[in-house]
Amino acid sequence: MTTPPGVSTASFEQTLRQWRGVVGEDWVWTTPQDLDTYRDSYSPLYGEAAERVASAVVAPDSVQQVQQILRIANQARIPVYTISTGKNLTYGGSAPAYSGSVILDLKRMNRILEVSERNAFALVEPGVSYFDLYRYIQGHKLKLWIDCPDPGWGGLIGNSLDHGAGYTNAPYRDHFEAHCGMEVVLADGELLRTGMGALPNAQTWQQFRYGMGPMVDGLFAQSNFGVVTKMGFWLMPEPECALYLVAEAPRHDDGPAFIDTLAQLSYADLISSQLLVESPVTGYPMGPELAKLRADWSERRVPALDDYARRTGVACWSAPFSLYGPEDVIRAKLAHIRSRLERISGARVRELACLHFPLTEQQVATVPDKPRVGIPNLSYFTSRFAPGAPLFEGHIDFSPVVPLDGRTVREAQDLFDRICQSHGIAPLGGRLLLYHLRAACLIYAIPVGRDAQANAKAREGFARLMDVAAEHGWGEYRIHPAFMDKGMGFYSFNDHALRRFHERLKDAVDPNGILSAGRYGIWPKHLRGRV
Amino acid sequence: MTTPPGVSTASFEQTLRQWRGVVGEDWVWTTPQDLDTYRDSYSPLYGEAAERVASAVVAPDSVQQVQQILRIANQARIPVYTISTGKNLTYGGSAPAYSGSVILDLKRMNRILEVSERNAFALVEPGVSYFDLYRYIQGHKLKLWIDCPDPGWGGLIGNSLDHGAGYTNAPYRDHFEAHCGMEVVLADGELLRTGMGALPNAQTWQQFRYGMGPMVDGLFAQSNFGVVTKMGFWLMPEPECALYLVAEAPRHDDGPAFIDTLAQLSYADLISSQLLVESPVTGYPMGPELAKLRADWSERRVPALDDYARRTGVACWSAPFSLYGPEDVIRAKLAHIRSRLERISGARVRELACLHFPLTEQQVATVPDKPRVGIPNLSYFTSRFAPGAPLFEGHIDFSPVVPLDGRTVREAQDLFDRICQSHGIAPLGGRLLLYHLRAACLIYAIPVGRDAQANAKAREGFARLMDVAAEHGWGEYRIHPAFMDKGMGFYSFNDHALRRFHERLKDAVDPNGILSAGRYGIWPKHLRGRV
Repeated sequence: MTTPPGVSTASFEQTLRQWRGVVGEDWVWTTPQDLDTYRDSYSPLYGEAAERVASAVVAPDSVQQVQQILRIANQARIPVYTISTGKNLTYGGSAPAYSGSVILDLKRMNRILEVSERNAFALVEPGVSYFDLYRYIQGHKLKLWIDCPDPGWGGLIGNSLDHGAGYTNAPYRDHFEAHCGMEVVLADGELLRTGMGALPNAQTWQQFRYGMGPMVDGLFAQSNFGVVTKMGFWLMPEPECALYLVAEAPRHDDGPAFIDTLAQLSYADLISSQLLVESPVTGYPMGPELAKLRADWSERRVPALDDYARRTGVACWSAPFSLYGPEDVIRAKLAHIRSRLERISGARVRELACLHFPLTEQQVATVPDKPRVGIPNLSYFTSRFAPGAPLFEGHIDFSPVVPLDGRTVREAQDLFDRICQSHGIAPLGGRLLLYHLRAACLIYAIPVGRDAQANAKAREGFARLMDVAAEHGWGEYRIHPAFMDKGMGFYSFNDHALRRFHERLKDAVDPNGILSAGRYGIWPKHLRGRV
Repeated sequence: MTTPPGVSTASFEQTLRQWRGVVGEDWVWTTPQDLDTYRDSYSPLYGEAAERVASAVVAPDSVQQVQQILRIANQARIPVYTISTGKNLTYGGSAPAYSGSVILDLKRMNRILEVSERNAFALVEPGVSYFDLYRYIQGHKLKLWIDCPDPGWGGLIGNSLDHGAGYTNAPYRDHFEAHCGMEVVLADGELLRTGMGALPNAQTWQQFRYGMGPMVDGLFAQSNFGVVTKMGFWLMPEPECALYLVAEAPRHDDGPAFIDTLAQLSYADLISSQLLVESPVTGYPMGPELAKLRADWSERRVPALDDYARRTGVACWSAPFSLYGPEDVIRAKLAHIRSRLERISGARVRELACLHFPLTEQQVATVPDKPRVGIPNLSYFTSRFAPGAPLFEGHIDFSPVVPLDGRTVREAQDLFDRICQSHGIAPLGGRLLLYHLRAACLIYAIPVGRDAQANAKAREGFARLMDVAAEHGWGEYRIHPAFMDKGMGFYSFNDHALRRFHERLKDAVDPNGILSAGRYGIWPKHLRGRV
C-alpha cells in the first residue's frame, strides 16, 4: 500500500478505517487499479518518478461526511486533495499536486439544490456536471441557459474554482465571475456560508454576492483554504435569437487593427460573447506548404503568407463570436460591428447561422459549436482542427494573459511561435481568446504523451515560454500542477509579498496543512521549501 | 489631549512625534477644532457620550509614509482608522468605528496614476475623487465615462470598498465589481499587490483581476485587513447616445407585475443601467392628503390610492432608468421594453431625454440627473424630493437586500412602512434600487439630527427594521458603524462561523489589531466582546 509521505502504514490504515466508518466500505479506494483512474492522463510527467499520484481515494456523499473526513484527516495529519467531477484535463486532471495525497472525490455530491427561473440562478453541489444541469433545465422546461466549456462532462464548481470559462455573454462566460454564494468546509471540519448565505433563512444568497463585511469567496478559488460544498451560479435567460458570426480580415498585417477593433467592440458591449481571434494562416496546426512559409522569419514572409491566403481563400485573421438577444436588437448591433470592422479594407463579418429559441430536438442534435448556445457535449475530443492535423495523446496549455492591444498581441505571438519552433514544439493554437472579462489569453496547447523523452522536451519548451512571458509582464491565468510553483514564483512583487500573504492565510485557516498541498504554489508550513 | 483607549499620554505623544518625523509637522492634527471636522455630522449618536470620535489625525502623502506610519502604530499598538476622501455620509462619514482611534486620512494621496483610453481603465490613489477623475478625463479629451454616486465629492476607492454604486451600465455601476487590481499596505507595513499586479512589469494589472492563485481583493472591502493605497477601475467607453426613460404603471396593485417585468428585462440585459423603482403614491415623503390615505391600512386603502393617482396624474409606480449605446440599438431595446411592460394595462415608458455625446459645455451644465451620464455633482444636497418635503439635518440609511420578486418586495415595503409609522419615523424613500448586479435594495433614509431624544427614537426604529428584515432573511448591504455589530450579528449561520472566520483572518494579518477596529463587526482579539 502507498502511504502519504511521512505517514506510517499503521496510522494510514487507521485513518482509512475511520473514513470507512464515515462513508461506508465501498467509498474508500486503495487498489492500484482504482488509483490508476485518478492519474492525470495528460500529465507532462506521465510514468516518471516525479508524476504526482494519489495514495487513496475517499468519496463522501454529504456535507456532514466531508466535515467528518476532514476532522479525521486534520487530527491524523493526512494530506487530502479535493476534486469534484475530476476532469480539468490539461490543468492537472484528477491527480494531486502533492504526490501521495488522498483524493477527496466529491463526485457523489451531485445534487441540484435549486434552480430559479424567475431569478435565473442555480445552487449546486460539486459533483453536478454541465450535462446534469442542462438535463435538469431541459427536463423542467425552464427558459434558462447554462454556460459550458468545450467538454461538457466537467463540473460547474470545479471549473469555476479553477477560473474556467465558456462561450456565451459576459458575465456568464467567466465561470467564477458568474458565481454567487458558497458553502465551504474548513480543514477542521468547520462549516461556513459566504455572502448572504450566512444569514439564516437567507432569501438572496444567490442574488447578492457581498453579504456584509469582507467578501471571502475569492480565497477558495485556485487555492487550498477550504473545500467548497455548495455554490450558486447566475444563469442567462434564454434569448430570443442567436447569431453565429465570424469576423475576417484578409492580410497578415491587418492583425493589430483587427484585434484593436474587436477589443473596442467588446468594451463597448457590442460584442459580449467569447471572442476567439485565430490566425488560420499563421496559427497552428498547418500543412506542409504553410509550415515552409511560416518557418521563414524574413520580411519576405508576410507577402508570401498574404499570397497564400488569397490563393486558398482563407482569411489571414478570423474571429468567431455570437450575438444573443431579440433579433432586431442584435441585428442593429451587427450593423455597427460591420461598419467598424469594414474600416479595415477587405474585412467583413459573415453570418454562419441565425437560431431562434427554443430549438427543436432536431436542431439541438445538429447545431454546430454547441457550447455557443449552452449545450454541453464532448465533440471537442473527436475534432480535428485542420485537415491532416495530428490527434494529440494529451496536452498542457500555456495560457498567458496579454493586454488587448493588437501590436502587443502580434509581438507575443511572434515571440511564442519562435520559441515553439526552436524547441521543436508543434502546438495547437496560438489563438487569442477573450473569455474572461476584458482579459485576453493566448492559448497554446503543448502536446505531451507517453514518451518520457518527448515530454521532457515539451516541459523544457513550456518553461521557456513561461519565462519569456513573465519577462514581458504577462502571467498565466491557470496552469498545470507541474508548473504551479514556477508560475506563482513570477508573482514576486516586493519579495513575494503575495505568496507570503497566501501562506499567512494558509497557516491561519489550515494550520496542520492538510488541504490540497501545493495547489497554485501554496504549501503548508511543514512542506514549504522542501518539495 | 484625547488618547486612544488604554494608551498613555506619554506613549501617544511619542507616537505623534514619530509620525511627525514621517509626514512633517503640518500633517498630524490633535486640536479639538481639527478633530471636529472628522466627526460624523450624520451620526445617530451625535453629541452623546457614545458618539465615536477620533483622538488625532495623520495624513500621509505617499505609500512609503503609510508603511512607516503603520510600522510605528503596530509597534506602539495605536489603533488607526483609515479613510480616503472622508465622505461616506449616512454610513459613518469620517469618524472611526472605535472611539479614540487615530484617523489615517489618505486624502493627500490623490494622484491619478494611469488612464488608458484604449483599454478603458484608470489606476488611482485613495484621495482621488469622482470630480478629480472626471476633470482629468475631460481635460485629456478621453472618450471614457466614470460611474459616480449621487454626490461626486467622494473617492473612487472609499466608495468601492464600502460597496457603493452608481447609475450607468453593469458592471460599472457596481463600484467594487468594476475594480481591477489593488495595492495594499498590511498592518506591519508590508506592501502587497493583488492580481496581476504581483508580477513585476505587469501589463494587465487593470485587465485581469484574478492573477494566479486565490483572489484576495474581497478581503479588503468592508473590513480592516489592510490599507488600500492603489486601485484600478474599469471605465465605460463613451456611448454614442443615452436615453433617459421612466417606466410607469398606474395602479397600486400593479406593483408586483411591474417589478417582476423590470427584473426580467434586467436579467435579459435589455436594461443594464441602475433601476430605481419608486412608488410616488405610497412612498415617502408625502403631502397631508396622501399621509391620511396611507395611514389607513384597511382594504379601502388601495382604491383610494388609485383614485388619488388618477386625480393627480401621478403613476402609482415609476422607475427611471437609462439606455446607453448606438441610438438604433437602444431604440430597438426600448421597443422590446415597451412591449413587455405594456402587458400591464395602462403601463408605459416615457422618454425624458435623448442625448448624443460628447455633450456641449452648455449641455453639461444643464443636463438633469448628471450621474446618469457620468457627471459628478453635488446637487443631491440641495434637492427636495417632493414639494414640501423636509430637508433633513442628516440621515442613516436602512438598506436591506430583498429578492427581485414583486410580491416579496411589496410585502417588505408594507412591513417596513408599518414599522416606520409605529415608531413615528418619517423616512425618505422606501424605493427599490437595483444598483448592484442582480441585487435589489430597499433604501429608507431614516432622519437623524442634533436632538438626542429624537435620535434615540430613530435608533430604536432602525434596530426594529433590522430585526424584522433579518427575520425574513433579508440582510443589509452596508451599514452605519453604530449598527455594524448588530448587522453582522445576523449573519450567524453555524454559530457565527463567518464572523469567526473573519476573526481568524484578522488575527493572522493584523495580530496586534491596530487597523480600523470594529469595522463591519470585526474586532481585534484584545477588544473582542469588550466594546
